[in-house]
Amino acid sequence: MTDHRWMARALQLAREGLYTTQPNPRVGCVIVRDGEVVGEGFHPRTGQPHAEVFALRQAGERARGATAFVTLEPCAHFGRTPPCAEALIAAGVARVVMAGLDSNPLVGGKGRQMLEAAGIATATGVLEAEAQVLNPGFLRRMAGGIPWVRLKMAGSLDGRTGMPSGESKWITGPDARRDVQKWRAMSSAIITGIGTVLADDPALDIRPEEWTGWHYGEPVQPWRVILDSRLRTPLTAKVLKANTKVIVVASPDADDGRAQALTALGAEVWRLPHGDLPGLLQRLAAQGANEVLVEAGATLAGAFLQAGVVDELVLYLAPTLLGSLGRPLMALPIEHMAGQKRLDIRDVRNIGADIRILARPAAQA
Amino acid sequence: MTDHRWMARALQLAREGLYTTQPNPRVGCVIVRDGEVVGEGFHPRTGQPHAEVFALRQAGERARGATAFVTLEPCAHFGRTPPCAEALIAAGVARVVMAGLDSNPLVGGKGRQMLEAAGIATATGVLEAEAQVLNPGFLRRMAGGIPWVRLKMAGSLDGRTGMPSGESKWITGPDARRDVQKWRAMSSAIITGIGTVLADDPALDIRPEEWTGWHYGEPVQPWRVILDSRLRTPLTAKVLKANTKVIVVASPDADDGRAQALTALGAEVWRLPHGDLPGLLQRLAAQGANEVLVEAGATLAGAFLQAGVVDELVLYLAPTLLGSLGRPLMALPIEHMAGQKRLDIRDVRNIGADIRILARPAAQA
Repeated sequence: MTDHRWMARALQLAREGLYTTQPNPRVGCVIVRDGEVVGEGFHPRTGQPHAEVFALRQAGERARGATAFVTLEPCAHFGRTPPCAEALIAAGVARVVMAGLDSNPLVGGKGRQMLEAAGIATATGVLEAEAQVLNPGFLRRMAGGIPWVRLKMAGSLDGRTGMPSGESKWITGPDARRDVQKWRAMSSAIITGIGTVLADDPALDIRPEEWTGWHYGEPVQPWRVILDSRLRTPLTAKVLKANTKVIVVASPDADDGRAQALTALGAEVWRLPHGDLPGLLQRLAAQGANEVLVEAGATLAGAFLQAGVVDELVLYLAPTLLGSLGRPLMALPIEHMAGQKRLDIRDVRNIGADIRILARPAAQA
Repeated sequence: MTDHRWMARALQLAREGLYTTQPNPRVGCVIVRDGEVVGEGFHPRTGQPHAEVFALRQAGERARGATAFVTLEPCAHFGRTPPCAEALIAAGVARVVMAGLDSNPLVGGKGRQMLEAAGIATATGVLEAEAQVLNPGFLRRMAGGIPWVRLKMAGSLDGRTGMPSGESKWITGPDARRDVQKWRAMSSAIITGIGTVLADDPALDIRPEEWTGWHYGEPVQPWRVILDSRLRTPLTAKVLKANTKVIVVASPDADDGRAQALTALGAEVWRLPHGDLPGLLQRLAAQGANEVLVEAGATLAGAFLQAGVVDELVLYLAPTLLGSLGRPLMALPIEHMAGQKRLDIRDVRNIGADIRILARPAAQA
């Protein structure tokens, strides 16, 4: 089926925006006439035109009577740009093939309706699963008001992160650390805990020079989110110096003076009840966070797992045994087998000398 | 290089004996004349002819002037069969290509010498690494008097084997359990501990109907070895009913009455100081054990690792998190990062819903 072939090309184009479109979705578009590509485009960055616009510009007059392949339903509303459905109609496109509809129940289908009302043939469901993988956070946020949550962990083959004394560092190798950069760059926000900030003082930054290749431009820097109920973040912490939004999440009763000091350094201080992870995720989504990456210590990693808000695990296992006294990957007290957290393995591969496992919580039996 | 091509075929033949040749090595032979195979053979089982004999029989007169490819140096001594080097000479073979020499320093090279003294051209080192992988235990035993030790472990992605209460069972799936059958069948002996016998009463048997395909015949049943210093093995234990040699390893001062009761059931009772794993391995090798598989609980697994006698880890990770209270994969008390056991990952793959990792201890830095 040739529809699939052109949609695959549109998905390839969409991936160019993997690190740059947030909070917008990654979208690609291919315009085909008489079996030949006459226009291609992808959405590169918020504020810049949508994929359809670039493809239509390239196609020019040749768009008339052509078929447009779009990885997401064309928008029907005026946002920062005029609706793409209108642009496709104006260009005289004869048929529009979409991978899937917009997942926002209030908006989904409107773009298709607008096209059909103008006499344009439409089709949906072409490589829809592949298109969903590209925008898990955007689709989740549109559908349910929460982001897609990835939990990154790294430990030894026997599931340990360090010595009983706390001694650790550099368990995984340079390739794994470079790989983490990609997950960060795909994310709208990186969440960590005050324990990690105090112990390691991480910058949680992106060094794009390590991994950019064919992708479009400089990645959008994800927000830094520090769960710090008692506002113990040192004012000298590296994470506060990030060139992006920094959010410190404190308890409602945390010290106002500390909060003001952090605000003076450019951080936002959010007040949320301690442990209210669903509330935090809703608020992040409301501000436009699609995918968030949790890079935290055992306590917070365990808290996310226990709260049932993790969508995907990114687990790096280093080729070493740290022994049975070692610190656990996550603080997750389970007393009975019935309480185990079953997973589905989605991908296993070697990353340098380490192993990377992608897994998702299994559907409840 | 065509030598490699024919040696690859000889290795393929040798693998037919993967589960049946022990304590002999797996060996294959191809005889080629004028670019054409005129004879093929492999050693199927102790007491039956060697690979060269089968290949020479098939070749008949066409062996004269031909080249023989053998995955191990032909034997030069009278064992249960006459020396193969002599048979190759008698058949008039012009050239013999060997993957490698026999690793026994007292024997290695004698076969080649005998051939060369008869005017036959020889070559070695063709796919030698591949040939070594096929007989790690035989080569180790011949070279150093100890077997190749594999440690099998199975746990969750967070490195746990069960609940704090001991509740566990069936963490890995049916495919992984079937895979374990192959490792058992490749082994000359399976070693377990009294803790496992008392807790699980395993049969540690091989059910060849689950996995035989193209391999030759019924696997040789590995010996069962129970480390049981105080001779607590119940006389009703399933492992005692094995249709093979059963060895119970006791402390020198363990109760004689218990020892006699076990001997009356057909078991051998060996007396060794508690924890003398090197001594045990030497004695097993002296009796002909090539590869041994340790299938034990956390205590014994840890003891083997700490003793530094493990050559290969076979680690199954099930797609689940059992949590930080769970029982560890192995009892391995390490206090400092300098004491970690670094590994080299050799293979990672999905086995059903589980992941299997093969690793070897890394060379000391």
